[in-house]
Amino acid sequence: MQFLADADLSLPQALRDIHRLAVEQPIEGKVADYIPALATADAIRCGIAFATLDGEVHTAGDAELPFSIQSISKVFGLVLAMQRMGDGLWRRVGMEPSGQPFNSIVQLEWEHGIPRNPFINAGAILVADTLVAHFSSSRQAFLSFVRRLAGSEYCDVNDEVLASETRHGSRNAALAYLMKSFGNLEAEVDEVLAHYFFQCSVEMSCKELATSLLFLANQGMHPITGEKVTSPRDAHRVNAILSTSGMYDQSGQFAFAVGLPAKSGVGGGIVAIVPGHGVIAAWSPPLNRHGNSTRGLSMITELASRLGLSIF
Amino acid sequence: MQFLADADLSLPQALRDIHRLAVEQPIEGKVADYIPALATADAIRCGIAFATLDGEVHTAGDAELPFSIQSISKVFGLVLAMQRMGDGLWRRVGMEPSGQPFNSIVQLEWEHGIPRNPFINAGAILVADTLVAHFSSSRQAFLSFVRRLAGSEYCDVNDEVLASETRHGSRNAALAYLMKSFGNLEAEVDEVLAHYFFQCSVEMSCKELATSLLFLANQGMHPITGEKVTSPRDAHRVNAILSTSGMYDQSGQFAFAVGLPAKSGVGGGIVAIVPGHGVIAAWSPPLNRHGNSTRGLSMITELASRLGLSIF
Amino acid sequence: MQFLADADLSLPQALRDIHRLAVEQPIEGKVADYIPALATADAIRCGIAFATLDGEVHTAGDAELPFSIQSISKVFGLVLAMQRMGDGLWRRVGMEPSGQPFNSIVQLEWEHGIPRNPFINAGAILVADTLVAHFSSSRQAFLSFVRRLAGSEYCDVNDEVLASETRHGSRNAALAYLMKSFGNLEAEVDEVLAHYFFQCSVEMSCKELATSLLFLANQGMHPITGEKVTSPRDAHRVNAILSTSGMYDQSGQFAFAVGLPAKSGVGGGIVAIVPGHGVIAAWSPPLNRHGNSTRGLSMITELASRLGLSIF
Amino acid sequence: MQFLADADLSLPQALRDIHRLAVEQPIEGKVADYIPALATADAIRCGIAFATLDGEVHTAGDAELPFSIQSISKVFGLVLAMQRMGDGLWRRVGMEPSGQPFNSIVQLEWEHGIPRNPFINAGAILVADTLVAHFSSSRQAFLSFVRRLAGSEYCDVNDEVLASETRHGSRNAALAYLMKSFGNLEAEVDEVLAHYFFQCSVEMSCKELATSLLFLANQGMHPITGEKVTSPRDAHRVNAILSTSGMYDQSGQFAFAVGLPAKSGVGGGIVAIVPGHGVIAAWSPPLNRHGNSTRGLSMITELASRLGLSIF
Repeated sequence: MQFLADADLSLPQALRDIHRLAVEQPIEGKVADYIPALATADAIRCGIAFATLDGEVHTAGDAELPFSIQSISKVFGLVLAMQRMGDGLWRRVGMEPSGQPFNSIVQLEWEHGIPRNPFINAGAILVADTLVAHFSSSRQAFLSFVRRLAGSEYCDVNDEVLASETRHGSRNAALAYLMKSFGNLEAEVDEVLAHYFFQCSVEMSCKELATSLLFLANQGMHPITGEKVTSPRDAHRVNAILSTSGMYDQSGQFAFAVGLPAKSGVGGGIVAIVPGHGVIAAWSPPLNRHGNSTRGLSMITELASRLGLSIF
Repeated sequence: MQFLADADLSLPQALRDIHRLAVEQPIEGKVADYIPALATADAIRCGIAFATLDGEVHTAGDAELPFSIQSISKVFGLVLAMQRMGDGLWRRVGMEPSGQPFNSIVQLEWEHGIPRNPFINAGAILVADTLVAHFSSSRQAFLSFVRRLAGSEYCDVNDEVLASETRHGSRNAALAYLMKSFGNLEAEVDEVLAHYFFQCSVEMSCKELATSLLFLANQGMHPITGEKVTSPRDAHRVNAILSTSGMYDQSGQFAFAVGLPAKSGVGGGIVAIVPGHGVIAAWSPPLNRHGNSTRGLSMITELASRLGLSIF
Repeated sequence: MQFLADADLSLPQALRDIHRLAVEQPIEGKVADYIPALATADAIRCGIAFATLDGEVHTAGDAELPFSIQSISKVFGLVLAMQRMGDGLWRRVGMEPSGQPFNSIVQLEWEHGIPRNPFINAGAILVADTLVAHFSSSRQAFLSFVRRLAGSEYCDVNDEVLASETRHGSRNAALAYLMKSFGNLEAEVDEVLAHYFFQCSVEMSCKELATSLLFLANQGMHPITGEKVTSPRDAHRVNAILSTSGMYDQSGQFAFAVGLPAKSGVGGGIVAIVPGHGVIAAWSPPLNRHGNSTRGLSMITELASRLGLSIF
Repeated sequence: MQFLADADLSLPQALRDIHRLAVEQPIEGKVADYIPALATADAIRCGIAFATLDGEVHTAGDAELPFSIQSISKVFGLVLAMQRMGDGLWRRVGMEPSGQPFNSIVQLEWEHGIPRNPFINAGAILVADTLVAHFSSSRQAFLSFVRRLAGSEYCDVNDEVLASETRHGSRNAALAYLMKSFGNLEAEVDEVLAHYFFQCSVEMSCKELATSLLFLANQGMHPITGEKVTSPRDAHRVNAILSTSGMYDQSGQFAFAVGLPAKSGVGGGIVAIVPGHGVIAAWSPPLNRHGNSTRGLSMITELASRLGLSIF
């Protein structure tokens, strides 16, 4: 990755260009509507941020507007659980790509209630179970963790989204009860789901998201707070799982086209880790059929291509 | 990846250490016996090679003995097909991890004869079909390609292995006929399988394997021959698919633990790409239950850890 | 079916013989222990009853002891739902054999929340949903229905079994929530499960069971009460589904070996319909690996063979 | 089944009525076109025959025109294999309904190469393997068997259909090679498929079909030739499997609506066994989406309803 030498000066310009290109295109895809509260997101919003290890955050567009982080919360949940449980976590959740749509119950049945990885819904519910079992108030612990990483007290839950998630959570309840039936859930299903829906309903901006995950680009140490969030080895591990499983059923294609560990959410956000350099966060609500933001994908693909960011 | 500065001098020593550690351990795992000709491999053989972009190849142990490359041949087949077919190839084979055992027929059925990626058997058979359809003698073309990359005229097919593969190829025939029934195979099944079994039966040494794949660590250009084997983009793509799908149903775990694009074969070989630096090839016949060489895994994991090679 | 002429006189003797043969054999199989309350059933108990259309009930062994009817309750639930909903029921549940273990969630996922038939757990939960939605108190309605058919006020729920079912009902909750997520459940999941666990926990004797289902052998009319429980067509339909799907994953084998519509439960009961003649009910708690009573199977197979009862 | 008393006199009239009703309806469904030679069948042809145990054959419409029996041949193949192999056959093929489309490869993979029953394609190919292994010329043996049962020397193979089957047999080849890979096929795949395609390509008329299967309605004894084709027990068994698995993925619905053991073929034929009375054969080429003749279904359903033929 030789981009820093000549690219740094032009990074703000590159972001502006890329953002402009994206918003000039007709909007493709469809804002998530599987829960009503998400369907009201403004399709026209579009932002991008690149936080670098020196503490700078370059942005373009709506990079400071908070949006529903949805599945991106799975990264924070996983890191928090790794901190508390150590390698014991990996006896209860796998680290292999799933090869199935993100909420498939079939694989969970075949594999006796052990989710394939922590980024499919079943895996994130399992992780939520470990948090509920470990913390007296797992929701508060989650929020504190995110705020500390983002350096912002403003990250918070959207109550309307939370209520909507809870009302439309039957499939996640099915996943949770199935794991419970295999003995792979410790806490009560209701509590686990309450935590899971809570973390999905947190709102953050591109700027906050990019800042909060800098430790993953920096061997586990957050370059701004100085906090050792994970060991170098665990940072590599999170990046590895992001790389094979972070972009739903399009993970292979994203690795193929972009080559960065990344995670997306149905709120339209995508974060991508650039090891040794920084973190990109992009946001635009309309999604493709895989559940990934179409403009988010375009902007990150273009940025990675211009700056030569692929880890491969 | 800052290892070169201080590690280069000690690379030969590191390889010797790692090799000694590996052979001092009791042998775990079992030599492949799904075809009789492989079952005769000498379980005690063990070698490792690290070819670097400057043209050096450091080795330890049995690094110059040829062995059956088996599924590692899928990498050569894929690159040869990419050269000839361009992006049209990706309409007939996917690039997503499979989440299924390497020879599963279930997924092929669900996905209407489009194999998930070129490193599962169905995908490699599909790639073989494109080679058979494109070359007047695809087997000769394959062998010439491998020899040129390895810089060795000695790479050749083991006739006994080839005969054994052919006699025990019913499952691969089932995969081929299933793709044929979905209209995703152009050539005659018999010819396609003949090519596929041929490439699986090629023998190479660790030294030859590491040398031959250097272009994947060098943006597509072979540093010794100077041949532009693929575009930089296609080199990244091959590494990306290796990263999510190269180690059978243990690909996620390998990314998690080692963090390098890699491919293994049931002959006991493993190759791992270190982008910007070189290629590691390890060999030891006994396999774990996933079909990966146990000592090969140990040696590569240890080497990557000592030298800090993870791409994450 | 020419058995009546010469067999009627000897039916009591045949039942005694068959019962003696069964209890003389060593006990094979294992009492159900998936819920603790069932595990306490007395493995040595064994009874059989044959109720004929003329109102006689011949018995041998423990034919008047109540036991947990478990999945046999699915027959009563289905008939009650058919009475209330008519053919609309079949838009929400299928009538095809499942080819899968009785509680498989995989098929339910593939088929978008439409259970294959009313005798797998998902199907019976769907039927319970229609009862909950239709009756002000579906549990009371169920119990009244069963008592009326059995001609006995003593049929009742075992509270300990009910509590145990409820505590260990995670897998059934998973099935219910999955159907809910596909929009195929009207009532609240908790209420539906409460009904389902209630009906599974009803206790009846062989004598009561055989009597209660006589209408299925008599074109829908109960020969003792004179009640027209179903139309002749619906009686045929219930028998048809029993025939393809009543004996879990051993339904084909039972049709093959015995040739009578039948339903079993993990409490060790089996009922078999002899169209035009009567109903057999057998009970012995130890189960084979398919969940069917081993002695129950032996007794019914032997009786059907001696009397030439096969519908084929 | 009390139909004989009053229905016998009117059986010819009933057949004529039912046939007229059927041909007066607009044609629904689509002539099979998965192989070109079948696609040329005349959609307007329509016939029905009812052979009774006294040796009479009542017919209406095109009941003496030969058509491609296709999957109905699986019944003859099974009976021939049962004659030769006895109960050993059931170690290599199951007797449970499949719950999957008739040619699904998924189940075969899950169940390690043991087909679920002899009426799915894999099961019939397995049966073909036993015939090839047993007879010096299995094709000749099959044809002689069918001719003897039908009392007609004219039953023969349609060479054009046979050639077409062979050219489009990739999916069946996949099934055969998959079974071979599990060690559940004795003979060479090519020979097994040659037999299988041969028996599918036999042509018979409704009259010949109904006559040929009379033994299944008569405890195994052919009432015209006097030949004891199977034991009573084996006749019941064949009827049992027909009952759960004879009508592709509509077997449950057919049992539900008609209640007779039956087998259909994509040539548009359906045979239905009326135990103790006779055999119905109907033919009309257009098929519904399950592969069953739409007019064939109508005619048999109507006849069974009018005469009260259900075994339930």
